[in-house]
Amino acid sequence: MTPQPTAASSPRPVLYSFYRSSCAWRVRLALNLKNIPFDTRPINLLAEQNKTPEYKAIQPFGAVPAFLEANSQGPALVESVAILEYLDETRPELPLLPKDPASRAKVRALVEAIAMDIQPIGSMRILKYIGKDKEAEWTSHFLKEGFSALEKMLEKTAGKYSFGDSVTMADLLLVPQFYNGIRFNIDMSAYPIMSRINSELETIPAFQASHPTKQPDCPPELR
Amino acid sequence: MTPQPTAASSPRPVLYSFYRSSCAWRVRLALNLKNIPFDTRPINLLAEQNKTPEYKAIQPFGAVPAFLEANSQGPALVESVAILEYLDETRPELPLLPKDPASRAKVRALVEAIAMDIQPIGSMRILKYIGKDKEAEWTSHFLKEGFSALEKMLEKTAGKYSFGDSVTMADLLLVPQFYNGIRFNIDMSAYPIMSRINSELETIPAFQASHPTKQPDCPPELR
Repeated sequence: MTPQPTAASSPRPVLYSFYRSSCAWRVRLALNLKNIPFDTRPINLLAEQNKTPEYKAIQPFGAVPAFLEANSQGPALVESVAILEYLDETRPELPLLPKDPASRAKVRALVEAIAMDIQPIGSMRILKYIGKDKEAEWTSHFLKEGFSALEKMLEKTAGKYSFGDSVTMADLLLVPQFYNGIRFNIDMSAYPIMSRINSELETIPAFQASHPTKQPDCPPELR
Repeated sequence: MTPQPTAASSPRPVLYSFYRSSCAWRVRLALNLKNIPFDTRPINLLAEQNKTPEYKAIQPFGAVPAFLEANSQGPALVESVAILEYLDETRPELPLLPKDPASRAKVRALVEAIAMDIQPIGSMRILKYIGKDKEAEWTSHFLKEGFSALEKMLEKTAGKYSFGDSVTMADLLLVPQFYNGIRFNIDMSAYPIMSRINSELETIPAFQASHPTKQPDCPPELR
């Protein structure tokens, strides 16, 4: 067993986060939707604060988010979807998943399509390895391929939101990934279902409060 | 709504699979561990049977696995971890997750570390894009980085298996990923906890029956 990092116990849950990280954004959305007050502990990825021994003892991949439960000495929970499932199990009011197993599987399939088949390929550590000169070609190829497939999945599942007419876990992944698409100069109008759902979600106060530009560690010039 | 593919209803569940796919292997392990008889419908990725319009109507990313429930007209369920969660919810005997939410979150974090932070980066569609000449350097870099971080996570959670002394969902991802490591010529002895757990799991009959070389679509010369 390695020594555990000393996590200062806090009366509110703590989210280790970087304002622009799409994975931290997912968890922020769950916390805000479920009306769970929390504190943000910024981990500046651009300044490599995620590579310190202290942070790597919490999250060995050096990724955000990590989540420390209220009044807990740790260890903090890691991996965004695992944290979403945890929040839904411990705060079942305003559920993020439907009740019947087949519907839950369909929501989780949308979650996984974004979390495993789309997001990792455009993540910062991959792009660093690919190199600045090839970044645009790489992200264009894989994001377009991923968004096309996701749009096909949404044809079968979407109502007002990604799965029917209630906000689900899938929507918590869709909004940050849509934003990444724009950031990487993808023409998102090519994906009309995603675009419509994203616009619907943007009108919800918890989604507005979760936006990167509203976070304490967002540089003032980007607000 | 797009037209649904006509899935011939079957009295046993059907797994759309490719013998060597690590993601299909995860689901096969769950089915075998839970003693659920099923039929395999082979989708030969090397012959691009995953790129046909028929298969893409089932799985828009053209990935395996897909899972058709017994006596169901479809649509088939997709994305391996979503299918694992579904199987655990519908067949709760021999559970794949512990009972309390914090422990479940730790198992799911191991699952996600493999499913999102390690596996996708070495997947066939990425490697095809990277090109044969750069494949070895790419997989060596990212698999070693991923396995080192996973080993650190396992330091905190492992007992006899990945999480304590019972087989969990995390073990269903570990074994196929370990095999991928060997296939990509990674020296797996550098990861003693993973290696020990993998050896333990290899002694379990359900794990032996799930091995790629035991599948109906495995070429005879590889058995």
